[in-house]
Amino acid sequence: MMPLRVLAFDVFGTVVDWHGTIAKEIDALYPGVDGNAFALAWRAGYRPAMQRVMTGELGWTLIDDLHRMILDELLPRFGLGHLDEAARRRLNKVWHRLDPWPDAVDGLARLTSRFMVCSLSNGNLGLLADMAKHARLPWDCILSAEVFRKYKPDPATYLGVARVFDVPPAEVMLVAAHHDDLAAARACGLQTAYIERPLEFGAASMKDVSPHPDNHWHAKNIGHLADLLGC
Amino acid sequence: MMPLRVLAFDVFGTVVDWHGTIAKEIDALYPGVDGNAFALAWRAGYRPAMQRVMTGELGWTLIDDLHRMILDELLPRFGLGHLDEAARRRLNKVWHRLDPWPDAVDGLARLTSRFMVCSLSNGNLGLLADMAKHARLPWDCILSAEVFRKYKPDPATYLGVARVFDVPPAEVMLVAAHHDDLAAARACGLQTAYIERPLEFGAASMKDVSPHPDNHWHAKNIGHLADLLGC
Repeated sequence: MMPLRVLAFDVFGTVVDWHGTIAKEIDALYPGVDGNAFALAWRAGYRPAMQRVMTGELGWTLIDDLHRMILDELLPRFGLGHLDEAARRRLNKVWHRLDPWPDAVDGLARLTSRFMVCSLSNGNLGLLADMAKHARLPWDCILSAEVFRKYKPDPATYLGVARVFDVPPAEVMLVAAHHDDLAAARACGLQTAYIERPLEFGAASMKDVSPHPDNHWHAKNIGHLADLLGC
Repeated sequence: MMPLRVLAFDVFGTVVDWHGTIAKEIDALYPGVDGNAFALAWRAGYRPAMQRVMTGELGWTLIDDLHRMILDELLPRFGLGHLDEAARRRLNKVWHRLDPWPDAVDGLARLTSRFMVCSLSNGNLGLLADMAKHARLPWDCILSAEVFRKYKPDPATYLGVARVFDVPPAEVMLVAAHHDDLAAARACGLQTAYIERPLEFGAASMKDVSPHPDNHWHAKNIGHLADLLGC
């Protein structure tokens, strides 16, 4: 293996459970609403919204603002069109309060003993900092698309991590639960590790977590990755 | 007092002891060289170099690269012009390994219990992340001029912190050992806290640490600030 200095983690789905946290919050706040369907619909709006930024149709827009645009469109469809501004702002910040997968905090802490461990998320810095404080994620550094003003999978994000830490791309590894993110990182010369998150979309929509042979590592969870890397 | 949500810390001199660390390293590596004078000369080159970026004479340049430009100019003056590229690279990274003032780690940790605690330094992200790992600084988030592509005292840096955390500037406090940095932050509507660091320039060049009445707080060190803020 090549030397490895930096581990850059995708966050939504890889480190934190967006589906479970949002479904639970919706179920608790609005008992008549299907929290599972609401969480899936909110997340489904994410790629098209980001696409509008990447094509230039929208100027640079933080994920907080994209989440809010999607939410405003979603609420009437779920019978929640009556929510006022304060309630919408509060609900939109659920993305700042996502709970970690059970293995995440301990796994990350173990990895920090040998590597520079950072986030590389399309989430904005404030969102990621609130989340890290809420979930006690022991990042060495929070990096975000916001720093590079490009969203993943733009090469500027993956190569940006290498530039920030002054190392060749081959000494950086992207860790993610999404093969497309990993493929884009590999195309930039990064190493890649896949994390299985079969429950990312909830128990009713189990995800295929088959290995992809191009990844350098395949781990059941972040603790398992720490095992594989000898931490 | 206004509500307070975010504490943004100046780093060089306020949280870490650049003079002591660099003087010690030079004294250890090159016994014939005056470590105290070397540290002071290196730091003295910093403002003029940054000024060249701020006026546009130089394009956006990371502090690591400014430090290196100053170092290359400095070495012959101290009889070290013979140092090869590897030695220069290694020495330049001393800024990534600066030691914290004795009160810094515990003081910051106490403050994180009630506030979002971040850096706001002209140091680049990789430098600040290496330093945090070396010195075990418990930042909630590392912010740098690199994120805003402007150096302090540009208003974009102070206002950028408020924007990142989605709060009004008045809910952010800059903490620094330098009255000019604090004055620039106050002009943007931030609260300010001064930290006494009489030894910032070494015992041979004691610094005047008199209070300035415009600051909201004046503290002997970061632990004292935690006391004042009830943490």
